[in-house]
Amino acid sequence: MKKSFGALSLVFPAPVWVIGTYDKEGKPNVATVAWGGICSSDPPSVAISLRKSRYTYDSLIQRQAFTVNVPFGSQIEIADYCGIVSGRNADKFAAAHITAVRSEKVDAPYIAEFPMILECRVSGVMEVGIHMHIVAEILDVKVEESALGPDGLPDIARINPPVYAAERKDYYGIGQHLGKAFSVGKVFK
Amino acid sequence: MKKSFGALSLVFPAPVWVIGTYDKEGKPNVATVAWGGICSSDPPSVAISLRKSRYTYDSLIQRQAFTVNVPFGSQIEIADYCGIVSGRNADKFAAAHITAVRSEKVDAPYIAEFPMILECRVSGVMEVGIHMHIVAEILDVKVEESALGPDGLPDIARINPPVYAAERKDYYGIGQHLGKAFSVGKVFK
Repeated sequence: MKKSFGALSLVFPAPVWVIGTYDKEGKPNVATVAWGGICSSDPPSVAISLRKSRYTYDSLIQRQAFTVNVPFGSQIEIADYCGIVSGRNADKFAAAHITAVRSEKVDAPYIAEFPMILECRVSGVMEVGIHMHIVAEILDVKVEESALGPDGLPDIARINPPVYAAERKDYYGIGQHLGKAFSVGKVFK
Repeated sequence: MKKSFGALSLVFPAPVWVIGTYDKEGKPNVATVAWGGICSSDPPSVAISLRKSRYTYDSLIQRQAFTVNVPFGSQIEIADYCGIVSGRNADKFAAAHITAVRSEKVDAPYIAEFPMILECRVSGVMEVGIHMHIVAEILDVKVEESALGPDGLPDIARINPPVYAAERKDYYGIGQHLGKAFSVGKVFK
């Protein structure tokens, strides 16, 4: 039996991504979002949603660039902090003891201590209700060497990226391996 | 030290969602996507990306409706199967032993056996490279009663929704509780 919850922005899983930008004075800032996802494979593109009122929105539009910073599960306090304080009133890099590094491909900073970074250039903006939905090309993905598996590829288990569960407002890590994609479903063919 | 992977559609976590539609003859079909995310809180909205060539894309555009079906972790074989076979050539409901139920709010079917369902009405479509990026209003969220916590809210740990890790093509479940959102970050304030 299913219970109906009505019109709600609730789906599992949602990500926990820290968005890096430079403001108009060139000061680096970071802000956390849970509304986003990959939106194309070619050119590789990601979409995130931000309210217009957020400090990050103006910076992102001015520079047409941002980074997506994926934390280790153990960095959840930093990721959460970056979502509850505005860059208008705080230097989040100093407060959370993190380091801003200039990106190679776009005009935005990334967090040195985070294991997975996407350098993104804005390619489109769409208003969706109270949010601005920003589509961007991913020009580079950088991953910490300690987060690579023996095959040299990024290992989600080593990063243990936080997953956001809305309504209850919980963060969870990554659990057991469920199977190989494009493979385990062959049992039904 | 970070290793650069270049332009790649890779970020953690990505979801595993099975999209439900009726085709032009009214036959229910399901197809799996990993490119998507919530894109507004008000009106509650979700965005997914599909290639134009997919059977689901035509159905979704004709009916202006679809469902997002989130599997239990234990249903990963069904979710994977729905991504490797086209509805043009197979009745995936029969093959995977799942049941199509007509949605209440939109002209699309959902999977009875899956624990979390979003009923969605298309509100915008944007071409992003090789993908069509579809924005839709979430008109209802339905959750199986066995997937609710003692507080009556959807419990991500009981659903254990699969997370997709691209490049290595792995599915993982949900792990340990990392903390409360809008709370654990207060240590830096």
